[in-house]
This record gives sequence, structure tokens and C-alpha cells, in this order.
Amino acid sequence: MSEPVLESADGFSRIRVDCQYDGTNFSGWSIQPDRRSVQGVIEDVFSRVLDYEITTTVAGRTDAGVHALGQVFHFDLPENLHANWSLDSLLYIANRILTSEIRIIAITAISKDFHARYSALRRRYRYQLLDNARTLNPLDRVATASYHRPLDEERMNAASALLLGEHDFAAFCRAREGTTTIRHLETFSWTRDVSRPANGALCATIVADAFCHNMVRSLVGAMMMVGDGRWTPEKPAEILRSKQRHSHIAPAAGLTLIEVEYPPASEYGQRARRVTAESTRPVNRVPGS
Amino acid sequence: MSEPVLESADGFSRIRVDCQYDGTNFSGWSIQPDRRSVQGVIEDVFSRVLDYEITTTVAGRTDAGVHALGQVFHFDLPENLHANWSLDSLLYIANRILTSEIRIIAITAISKDFHARYSALRRRYRYQLLDNARTLNPLDRVATASYHRPLDEERMNAASALLLGEHDFAAFCRAREGTTTIRHLETFSWTRDVSRPANGALCATIVADAFCHNMVRSLVGAMMMVGDGRWTPEKPAEILRSKQRHSHIAPAAGLTLIEVEYPPASEYGQRARRVTAESTRPVNRVPGS
Repeated sequence: MSEPVLESADGFSRIRVDCQYDGTNFSGWSIQPDRRSVQGVIEDVFSRVLDYEITTTVAGRTDAGVHALGQVFHFDLPENLHANWSLDSLLYIANRILTSEIRIIAITAISKDFHARYSALRRRYRYQLLDNARTLNPLDRVATASYHRPLDEERMNAASALLLGEHDFAAFCRAREGTTTIRHLETFSWTRDVSRPANGALCATIVADAFCHNMVRSLVGAMMMVGDGRWTPEKPAEILRSKQRHSHIAPAAGLTLIEVEYPPASEYGQRARRVTAESTRPVNRVPGS
Repeated sequence: MSEPVLESADGFSRIRVDCQYDGTNFSGWSIQPDRRSVQGVIEDVFSRVLDYEITTTVAGRTDAGVHALGQVFHFDLPENLHANWSLDSLLYIANRILTSEIRIIAITAISKDFHARYSALRRRYRYQLLDNARTLNPLDRVATASYHRPLDEERMNAASALLLGEHDFAAFCRAREGTTTIRHLETFSWTRDVSRPANGALCATIVADAFCHNMVRSLVGAMMMVGDGRWTPEKPAEILRSKQRHSHIAPAAGLTLIEVEYPPASEYGQRARRVTAESTRPVNRVPGS
């Protein structure tokens, strides 16, 4: 594996894009052959508008069916092309062409050492879950999963709290060869949304420095086993220590990437170098690498 | 036209159903040949579950693409069938079989003189409109329409207020032969929702005793002309008095039937008889008529 090229090359501007999507009808963020991916649709639209083939690097490679309200990606644009474009116009035109399933909410020129994936300090996800066969408001059904049995949020909060901190989350990850599964889980808590449209849906907030593949849905799936009484609140922590994968993966529909947090601009490069040095995670596609 | 049969026949129980739907992919409430309608899907599911062919009568016959969070309909069920069914089980099974675009939120046995359409005192609609090319959150896009120009809600509120009261709304209706277009518009007002998911969408509340065909979208379409400065705030009231139809119909996607209000149970029959006597509106399909 070659050393990742983190900064934009000479003669290129680095562009940061914030976007949102309804992931229901996508095979996930990442481009895959013969599948409809968010990355594929976005790269196609931007490349056509700019008449220049862009390659994006994303903060969170969401799975099939997972949504985002605060996804971040970057790409590099030749400086002469950048000089000819108002980024406000680019945003407006991209949104006119893109499917309403995807919205671009900001496009900004950013320093060359900003890296959407490696500069990130932490990711925040939300998981919405309507239990006990409550009816799911058809106008708000896009980002909520359903479960027929009642779930006890106190048990779920107790169990979730036992997983906080830095651990090897191998039991909750689909492992990739040569990558670390050590993560720092900063927040994992459940509340019930009693507003009328939500109809009592459970809402989890899950924050970590980064997540391995399937980790959020695997954590939530374990909490569903605790919430309906089949597992004790201690069981997920025992599974964590065992490092043996469990098979209860929550449905993708309830999961939304809410926010990616970055350090101050002066620390973009430093953070990215530290993250890539600490982990042996495989490198995302980086232009020029 | 025969006199409507308002009450359930001897040997039948009247059943009230409250439901919600995402109208995006339906041709509207009413059954039409070779089209997918909300009524058609609901009657098909209930008839299969009950093994008895039901016919529904609805409070608000929403158009293609219009949504509902508080739609009400009734149907009549033979008493012996009713005796064999728990209505809670019927609700649970219907929701298991129905598409997630439609949710049944309550099923109740109700007095024989309750009539979903004619016993209603008033209907409340919401119209959500995101102006000025603001981006529409992909997870909340189902029930909001978009407009590229900025809209001035003060002008829209001034113009809307001039239409309140009992008037002949012929200029805002698609007329049907032999029906009255006199309606009592009780509320028509606009607010801006500055919560983060709504991103500043305009939200209209529109309440009347009843609405003629296309009336809400025609009223909203007129206000869009006022809001973007092409019409004066006085113009819609002038159009009202002229009784000449105008052609600015707002998109269906922004419109949602929020609530149908009924009088106390002791007045169901009285209200229904008064409404049918006062109007020469054509009769909805009523079982046994």
C-alpha cells in the first residue's frame, strides 16, 4: 500500500462539499459496478457541469440504505477552472440537475491540507427506531426503522453506556484485512421523541472518532436485543470483550449520518497525518495517489 | 340524483377509520380505472383481510400527489362479522399488509349516523413551500413544494386575510355541474418554519367548512403570485369577486390534509342532514344507495 497523498497537488484547488441524501434507493456512498451509488451520481453531475472529471473523497462511506444530513466530501479542481467558476453558481446548478434525493448544501474552497476523511475529529450518527408496532407517519418514514416488539430504553441506555470509551470493536465490525478495529465511542444514548409526528420513536445518538464497517448498525442491533429483554444489559459489553462477531444488525433505514466534526483549519493537516499514521486503515481513493 | 342514504343499514355496524398517507405515488384518494388510488389500495386490503367487500366514504377526496395525516373514512360492516373481529387486530393486520405509504392510525365502531364526509364541521390543510431556491432536506422532501423565487410572507398574509369569510369561491374551484361553490374560509395564514430541518419553509394553515375541487391549491397558487411581487395583495380578492377562474395552481406535493373536525356524537346525524340539504353537491358513494 502506497503512502496516501493527503494534500491537493500544485495547480489544484481543494473544494469541500457538504451534502445530504435519502439513501433508500442507493447501494451506499461508494461507487460499485452496475449499482446506483451516491458517489457515482454526484461525480457524474459535477463532472458534467464542470466539464472536468472529478474524484471525490468522503468523510463517511455510508452503506446501502443509510442516509446523511451532514455528509462531507472533497475533490480537487484545476486552479484555472476554479477561477472561472462561482461556487454559488456551481451549487445552484448542481442542485437543479441532481435528483431531489441528494442536496448540496455548501461548496467552499478550503485549504490544501483539508482531508474530508482523515482530518475529521469525529462522526455523529442518529438511529431512529419505532417500536411496539406503533405506526410510522408516512411523511416521515424515510429515516426511521420499525420493530414490532416494545423496547425498554432504560435497559438500552444502561447497556449502551457500558460500551463507551476506547475499545477494540471487532465484535461489532465487518473486518477488513489489515485494518484496526480500535475506536473511541464517545456518545451512545437513547431518548424517546414524543412529538406527534415521531409518535414515540426511539432516537439514538452515536458519536465516535470513526466507525468501522457496519459498526453503528451492529451496536444498535445489540441494543434491540437488550431492549426487548432477550439479552441482559451486560451482554453487549461481554460480546465486546469476546471479540466474537454477533449477527444482529439493525436495518439501514433508521441510520443517518448527522455531522462530521473537523478541527480548526490550522490543524487539518496535522490531524490527517496523525490519523493515517495511527491506523493501518486502507487508503480511500485520493486524486493523484 | 337520489337522496343520499346517510346512516348504516339495519344489521350493519358503522366503522370509522383514521389514516395517513404519502400521496406522491397515488392518483389521489378516489378509485379510478387503471390508476393506483389510496381508496383502491385500502378497500382491497380491508376486503381481503375481512373476506367481505367494503366500500369507503371519505372526508376529503384528495387529488393526485396530495398527502394526509388526518384523513377519515367510514365503511359499514355486517354485525356478525364485526362481532368476530377485534378492531385492534384489524388495525394491526391491515398495517402489516398495507404499503408503508399508508398507515391506519385508528379503527373505531361509531354510531350509525356518523358520516365521514357530511358530519364534518371543517377540514384543516397545511401547505409547505420552500422558496428562494433554498435546499429541501432530502429526508423531509415528501410534503414540501419548492419555488425558485423569494416569497414575501407579509404580503401573502395580507392577501390571504382578504379572502376570509363566506364567499362564492368559483374563481378558485374546478366547478362540477350542479354543485355550490360557496364555502366558509375560516383560517388562511402563513408562517416561516425556521427549524433546521425545515430550512425556512413557508407553512400555510387553511381551514374551511369544506373545499371545492382544486380550491386549496388554487388559493395557494394565487398567494405565490402575490408573494413574489407579480400581483398586488388586493388582486386575489378582486379575482374572488370576479368569479373568473385563474390558472395558478400550486403543486400537489406541498399539500397535506391535517385534520377533519366533527361535532359531538349527538350531532353527527343533524350535521350530515344540514350539510346535504344546504348544498346540491353530488353524493359520494354510500353503501346501499
